[in-house]
Amino acid sequence: MSEDDAPTDDQSIADRLGSFDTCTISDALDTLGLTGAVIGLAPLTIPGRRIAGEAVTVKLGPPLAGLPKRHLCAAAVMSARNGEVIVIEHRGRADVSGWGGLLSRGAIKYGLAGVIIDGACRDVDESRELGLPIFGRNAVPVTARGRIAEHAWDCPVTIGTVVVKPGDWVVADGSGVVFVDPNRLNDVLREAERISAREAAMALAIEAGSPLDQVLGANYEDLLNGAESNHG
Amino acid sequence: MSEDDAPTDDQSIADRLGSFDTCTISDALDTLGLTGAVIGLAPLTIPGRRIAGEAVTVKLGPPLAGLPKRHLCAAAVMSARNGEVIVIEHRGRADVSGWGGLLSRGAIKYGLAGVIIDGACRDVDESRELGLPIFGRNAVPVTARGRIAEHAWDCPVTIGTVVVKPGDWVVADGSGVVFVDPNRLNDVLREAERISAREAAMALAIEAGSPLDQVLGANYEDLLNGAESNHG
Amino acid sequence: MSEDDAPTDDQSIADRLGSFDTCTISDALDTLGLTGAVIGLAPLTIPGRRIAGEAVTVKLGPPLAGLPKRHLCAAAVMSARNGEVIVIEHRGRADVSGWGGLLSRGAIKYGLAGVIIDGACRDVDESRELGLPIFGRNAVPVTARGRIAEHAWDCPVTIGTVVVKPGDWVVADGSGVVFVDPNRLNDVLREAERISAREAAMALAIEAGSPLDQVLGANYEDLLNGAESNHG
Repeated sequence: MSEDDAPTDDQSIADRLGSFDTCTISDALDTLGLTGAVIGLAPLTIPGRRIAGEAVTVKLGPPLAGLPKRHLCAAAVMSARNGEVIVIEHRGRADVSGWGGLLSRGAIKYGLAGVIIDGACRDVDESRELGLPIFGRNAVPVTARGRIAEHAWDCPVTIGTVVVKPGDWVVADGSGVVFVDPNRLNDVLREAERISAREAAMALAIEAGSPLDQVLGANYEDLLNGAESNHG
Repeated sequence: MSEDDAPTDDQSIADRLGSFDTCTISDALDTLGLTGAVIGLAPLTIPGRRIAGEAVTVKLGPPLAGLPKRHLCAAAVMSARNGEVIVIEHRGRADVSGWGGLLSRGAIKYGLAGVIIDGACRDVDESRELGLPIFGRNAVPVTARGRIAEHAWDCPVTIGTVVVKPGDWVVADGSGVVFVDPNRLNDVLREAERISAREAAMALAIEAGSPLDQVLGANYEDLLNGAESNHG
Repeated sequence: MSEDDAPTDDQSIADRLGSFDTCTISDALDTLGLTGAVIGLAPLTIPGRRIAGEAVTVKLGPPLAGLPKRHLCAAAVMSARNGEVIVIEHRGRADVSGWGGLLSRGAIKYGLAGVIIDGACRDVDESRELGLPIFGRNAVPVTARGRIAEHAWDCPVTIGTVVVKPGDWVVADGSGVVFVDPNRLNDVLREAERISAREAAMALAIEAGSPLDQVLGANYEDLLNGAESNHG
């Protein structure tokens, strides 16, 4: 994809980014020397469903004096434009839910693509029935109410070891979750396109019966890269 | 639900209790200042299937001299009335199974609703095919035989951090497992009914387009509670 | 099964071994005083699908000077005969993938039955769509490339606490993974056959309404064993 082909509106970026799986995006980040992959997040509601969108961030923690009295994540969901993804910092906390069924209904009503929570969520069956993809660490029946609070939203958050800012792009699927800095989006899309095309060619070669070690070997990639150059 | 509407026989209690998910029950327990939710138990055989019934308890542990020579859980399964749930204390032990396929066949034959084990189980595929919901921590191929024994049954057990007595009520679904003291059952059902009605009204309001923060806000709940009083 | 009935070619051994679940094989190993069951490995792509085949082993680890420059697992996949199973030592490492989508395509092309990895894999959704059963500890988007290397293949490996040699037999299903030494294969098959027949008889007795404690009791097994002797 040349710079001229780079998508310009959010929906076409989401479509383009979501055409790649998290592994391809992670490889593109590697190639560019960037970080962004998270360890240990998995689909809790709909295995096999991939999502891609811009992050709307929320930071959760224990109740503190002076916090605004609002339902956690509500402002984030309401602010979200179509196709965005709620991304919740909760430091892997497993004993209290940081997301639930009424929020899932809100998320669907406001057109969100899905939810990433670095911690537990509840109402897993309800959210599955509603069709909302949620990626997190575990399920738990226990409400946040009176136990945790929203410390901030629309702020930088930490998911696993990755710092995520509002508007960062997120892709999630059965292999996990990756984040992409929008300032590097075109670079990442270009690399992902290159990697994806190379892997598609390698997949075809494997299916056509080329020896696996040859297809997966460094020489074969050089060959593909050379062929790309000839056409580029 | 007024006290007069309280269910009186076991099947209607199970139906009533099982009409609520574990999150609603957990919230009702919270409201009443009770404990009962367990962290870290998940469906091992049939995701999305909810069960509700009275607990028949079993306590497992390493072999000890002087224990009765019987197959673990057999007496509990045989004693169970239709719709009851086997609840097994095994302190999260992951390397040996505390429940298996022949017991699953027995459980179905004796009309049990499902199994909760605070530890590992085996014959996961067989139990799924048999249609028996099992909630636990993990699967493992290794038999209990010669490795663990039934220390007692029909006795108080500890599941996670919750003490469960024979005849306590249990509800389990994709969000986890909760237990209810039968002495507080009517209180819990009444609270669960109230919470469930409130959440149903809130879900309708969200779907009708009311602003999410307003629906989830404390004022909205007061409004609903007031409306309830007006009709009550 | 008498010694004369022992399967002689690989496919019929795999069929015979794969007619038993991992729990029955684990019980047969117990009876013979052998080890072989692994704790903590679960289906990552296709729950409920059982595989059985001979192990082709791979040992992964951090990059080291002097290692051959080849794609990890490629030689193992290419060497594999129809129905074999790739078995990968990676010591439970969760942050980097030791198996991915192009290898899954290769595995299917070369006729492999599945993959066991004591660690993480990626391209989970792709491998599910390809129909390749993978058993491991978790999924992760991060590639092995530049992070881990193949230290050796076709060598003894350690999976959990079990030492696995090339050509050892493996069975995996929803309850986990077991390995069988080919030198003890006929013994294990004979025991598995005995255990499976006994359990089938016990399952029939349970379904026919025999008291569960009687069916699961030691006396009932003696009875079955005696009945077998009478017919044997």
